[in-house]
Formats: sequence, structure tokens, C-alpha cells
Amino acid sequence: MPASLEDRRANLRAASTLIHGHGPVALPEELARVSRWCESESVDMDAYGEGEALQAFEARVAGLLGCERARFFPSGTMAQVIALRIWSDRAGLPMVGMHPTCHLELHEEHAYRHLHGLNSVLVGPTDRPMLARDLAAVDARLSSLVVELPTRENGGQLPSWEELVELSAAARDRDIRLHLDGARLWEAQVSYGRPFPEICSLFDSVYVSFYKGIGALAGAMLAGPADFVDDAIVWQRRHGGVLYSMQTHWASAAMRLDDQLARIPIYRERAIDLARRLAAIDGIEVIPDPPHVNMFHVILAIGPDEAEITRDRVAEDTGLWIFSRPRPEDDGRAMRFELYVGEAALAIPADEIAGAFARLMRLAKPAGG
Amino acid sequence: MPASLEDRRANLRAASTLIHGHGPVALPEELARVSRWCESESVDMDAYGEGEALQAFEARVAGLLGCERARFFPSGTMAQVIALRIWSDRAGLPMVGMHPTCHLELHEEHAYRHLHGLNSVLVGPTDRPMLARDLAAVDARLSSLVVELPTRENGGQLPSWEELVELSAAARDRDIRLHLDGARLWEAQVSYGRPFPEICSLFDSVYVSFYKGIGALAGAMLAGPADFVDDAIVWQRRHGGVLYSMQTHWASAAMRLDDQLARIPIYRERAIDLARRLAAIDGIEVIPDPPHVNMFHVILAIGPDEAEITRDRVAEDTGLWIFSRPRPEDDGRAMRFELYVGEAALAIPADEIAGAFARLMRLAKPAGG
Repeated sequence: MPASLEDRRANLRAASTLIHGHGPVALPEELARVSRWCESESVDMDAYGEGEALQAFEARVAGLLGCERARFFPSGTMAQVIALRIWSDRAGLPMVGMHPTCHLELHEEHAYRHLHGLNSVLVGPTDRPMLARDLAAVDARLSSLVVELPTRENGGQLPSWEELVELSAAARDRDIRLHLDGARLWEAQVSYGRPFPEICSLFDSVYVSFYKGIGALAGAMLAGPADFVDDAIVWQRRHGGVLYSMQTHWASAAMRLDDQLARIPIYRERAIDLARRLAAIDGIEVIPDPPHVNMFHVILAIGPDEAEITRDRVAEDTGLWIFSRPRPEDDGRAMRFELYVGEAALAIPADEIAGAFARLMRLAKPAGG
Repeated sequence: MPASLEDRRANLRAASTLIHGHGPVALPEELARVSRWCESESVDMDAYGEGEALQAFEARVAGLLGCERARFFPSGTMAQVIALRIWSDRAGLPMVGMHPTCHLELHEEHAYRHLHGLNSVLVGPTDRPMLARDLAAVDARLSSLVVELPTRENGGQLPSWEELVELSAAARDRDIRLHLDGARLWEAQVSYGRPFPEICSLFDSVYVSFYKGIGALAGAMLAGPADFVDDAIVWQRRHGGVLYSMQTHWASAAMRLDDQLARIPIYRERAIDLARRLAAIDGIEVIPDPPHVNMFHVILAIGPDEAEITRDRVAEDTGLWIFSRPRPEDDGRAMRFELYVGEAALAIPADEIAGAFARLMRLAKPAGG
């Protein structure tokens, strides 16, 4: 029975060691740490987004990014669509540009259209980041353009620095406001090896996330000019995003931001090493090769069902849970999943992880063979 | 210097005992309690609004209200405007009705208009709850009507049960969906002395809040028919209201809901007693008299500035902080504030609170005299 397989799988997963991300959040430990941090920093409770300690954290992130002001948001979905609405209202143009794999296009129920009355032009192909020549191919007048660094859905690819500068200049030539989807800007910055303000200076507004690479409970920030952030706060109220208190969320971000930023270069090094080891295994491909940041896609030359059954066997044998949610490729003859290298993978010897993948490919019947 | 007065006032307030609400939230204790509850109940972490324990809490609240389904929202602002959008989309009518003191009209930057393209008709006078005859005076075709129980901005007034039944019937006669702004439904239910499902059966959708009377960190629920809640979840995604995790918020609500509901009759009894004592003091009026729920407005026959200076002196003398944020009345010759009777007032003998108010009125120079 499928329900029974699902249950057994969930139990097996819960008993195994994940290699993706930072591993499961231990809420009691996290809340205890938030508590201690708030006490040791004498943090005042925020009320409806107001509070000295919260505003100090916002100023700290604005300073880090080289932006005039920043505002904490409950989610990136809320922050980004608001940025586009503001730029569109100011330009009097409802048309925005975005990559076809943009979070706003794929994962937000088209809020930009249904909630804010905006329209979009999809810019560039799915399998690589957006470039200046992709924008040149767009005839429509755009108020703004979203650029995600790195592009998550194609394996965390970054344009080269020169390509990014060229895209920014092309947008500015056409008076298009550039919004940075920096869900993984922390990761991108390490790869560019340039200060955050230098990267952000190519953009008019910037969103960063606190729960992915940073590993906080939830939350995001939207940064830009002061008058832009003022407008964003009005829209945040309209979205119902100014809560009675978000202290647990922003404190969880504030208390670990510096430490976590220092870890990302280590993740990246491990990601490049792991990708090299995996790509050496027969039937495994990584994209991009080598990875641009501490995440990449893994393509296995086996069908998704076979892959999941074999993944379960590998978990039973090795105790490692090497992927979740495979996406079919090539009409089901292959599958793809995302690997974000964080604390989870770092805690396991690289040869053990590579060994588990080698075992998987030995056990699996290749879909074509 | 005003800054210095402001600082001294903030320090004095922090050193005094508040009588409004439940008193300040002690975050470390709250987080420790959330932790213990999650451990003792073996609560699984929710991810993007999904999780067995979260869904169980939603089902529990739906059952309590007698609704088919309920969904946890980060805020009431988000939940309510979404309810109106759904009813308006279904009716193909952008026009909604609401009381002139409705939260959506006063405190949400007109999200219903700017974000959802809805228009409103204001129904009834500000100083009493909306009645069937107010709706009868509206010619416009409405998709839906918001009814707040109790009406917060006029001192927590409730229509009588018969008046409420009549309003509901009048709305249904005109095929208008009735949405219950139940920010303080927990409080209203105690006054009506009728089961929640009987009250909610007069409405098509219901919002309840967890941080006011219930005292949780933040959060709300939107309840109604299953297909309505399905639609609401899509809009919640569009609002950016489905967070990576809201466990701290909903757990803070779930762990205290039953205990807190049992406290509200005690608050109400104390509110009625306190209001009677205050109304007996020269220069003090309470609205409504007697209170309908465990909150009411207090009007003092002194100007707001004089009242604040005297309130500070009373705080120095008695250690009690008897009001914040007075609103001017009658061209500044009187002022009004809201008193929500909860744990804070319950912890102080009623004659001590009444004594502090009597002292205030003795010290103050009446604005007219």
C-alpha cells in the first residue's frame, strides 16, 4: 500500500542523517539560544515592527549591504513582490522582467499579477543565468527587472562578474530598476569575492533571506534607498506582514548572522570537493561543474522511482539520506535533485558521502540499460 | 526638552505596574514554555504551513468554532482582507460593507483598496455596533459585510443577540456574505453565553486572534467552508504569509488556548466591577456602562496633557501605570483611553486601582474648572 510505503519512508528518513542543508532544526535548542541571546544583549521586545534592537539589526544589515536602509520582513515572497510594485508604481509601468525560473514566477501563485496587477516578461533561458543580451532581446518597456544571484533552479549558477556588470549597465541604460533576489546572496558573495556593497551597488533594491544559508527560523530583509523602504513598510502593513511581534524570528537571524557568514566559504570548498567526487562516479553528472556556490544539482542516470527505492536501501545500509524529492529528467530515464552543502554535509566525511552515492549507482539498474 | 520628558516617562512606565491587558510579555519564559510544550506534545516542526501538529491545531479551532476548516495566519490583517477578496471574487462584486471603525478601514493602509482592488461602504455610526437598520440604509450591492464582535473602537460594544441574528438574516436576504471580525470573539462569546458554533453559524467566515485576549506571541486563524479555506491558502501564499516555520507563534497559541478561554469570564467579572468603581468617581465616565465584555473605554474630564502629567505623578506615588496613549475628546477638555481587563488588572486589588484613579482626579485640574 502506498500509504504504508510513505510511512516507512518517512520513518527511515527521520532515522537517517541528511546530507542536504543544515539538517533538521532542533526547536527547543533554537528557542533556548534565542532566549539567551535576547537576555545577554538586553534586547527589547519589538511591537508591530518597532523596537530599538530590531531597528539596530536592520541598520546593521543595511550597512553590511551598503544600502541606505533595510526592513525585516516575515518572508521573501512578501518583500520581493512589494519591491516590484513600488518600482512599477513609480514608473507608471506594470511590466516587470524576470528569469523564467524566478521564484515570483514559479512559487508564489503569481502574486505579482493577482495581488499587484503587474505583468511579466520572462527574460533568458532556464538553464543559465540572465545576461545583458537576454535583456536586449526584450522590446517591452519594463519598470524593473529581478536578477537572482545565484539562480537557484539551474543549480545555483552565477553570471561572471563582468556579465553581471554588463547586465546592470544595460538595465540602467533603459531606465529599468534592478532588483536583486538575494535569497542566496550570502553564498554568491563568497564566489565573487567582492564586498557586499560592491555587488549591491549594481542594484536598486536588494532582498536577502535568513533561513536558508543563515539557518534562522524564518524571515528576510528588503534594503534600498530610505524612501523606497518607507514605501515598502506601507505595503508590508497592507500585506498583513507587520506582526504583533517577530522577535523570535529576527533574533534567530541576528544572533547567528556573523558566525554563519564566516561558515559559507567552508561550505563552498566542501561543495566543490563533493561535486568533483560525485562527478567521477559512473552515471552521475553535476551542474554546474564545478559548482559556482555551495549548492549544485546532481543528475543520476536512473529513473526517479528506482532512485528512491535504491536511496532507501542506501539509507538502511549506510545511515545516510542522500536526497529528497527527485525531479524526473529526460522522460524519466534520469532524475535530478538539489544539494545545498551546509552543516549537514560538513559533519560527514566526504568519502563517506561519495561512497553512499557510488553504492546507490551500483545497486540501481540504470534506466537505459 | 521633550526627548528628556519622553525618556523619563518611558523609564517610569517600565518601572510601574501596568493595569491594561496581560502586562508585558517575558520572552525568555514564553520561549521556554513553548519549547517544553512542543517536547511534551511531541510536536513536529511545521514547514511552510504543513505539519501534523499544526493541522491538528487548525482542526481543533475549526471544531471549537463549528466551522468546516481553519487555517493559521501570521496576522489578522492578512486573514481578513483575503476573506473579503474571496467573497468579492465569487460574487463578481468589488464592493464590501464595514463599520466606520473597522480595522480594515482605520489600521491597514486601505489594503482592501490598494492591494485587492475592493471598494467599501461604511455602515452604521461610529459610536455603536452595526445593526440591521444600518444595512437597510445601504443601497449599493455588497459582496460581503464585516461585523466586528465586539466593536473595539467604541469601547467593546456588542449588539444584543437578537440584533445580531437580525443583522445576519438581513445580510442573507440580500445574498451578502457575512465575515466575522472575531479579534475579540473569545471575549464576545462569554457575554453572549452561547456556544461558539451558534455565534459562528450566523457568519460565512470567521477570523479569530491569538495574541490579544489569548496572549500568544502573534497569529490568527481564518475559518469557514473547506473550499473557502482552500482559496484562502492560495491568497496566503500570494501575500507571502506562508513562512518557512511559524511554529513558535502557533505553538504559543495552541499551548494556552484552553486555559486562557477559561480565564475570560473572570476578566469580564472584574471589568464590570472595576467599571462600576471608576464610574463612581467624580469626572470619570465609562463606555459602555456597564461594559459588554472585559474591556471598556474610560473618559476623564481633564485634557490629555494634564492627564499624562498627573498619570506620571500617580505612577510615582502608587507604582501603578493606569493608562497609555490618551485620545483627546470634546476639543481637548476631556480624554479617553481603552482598558482591557486581563491578567494585569486581575493581579491588583480592585480598590487599589480605583484608588489610583481617584487620586488622579484629585490631583488633576479639571479642564473645564
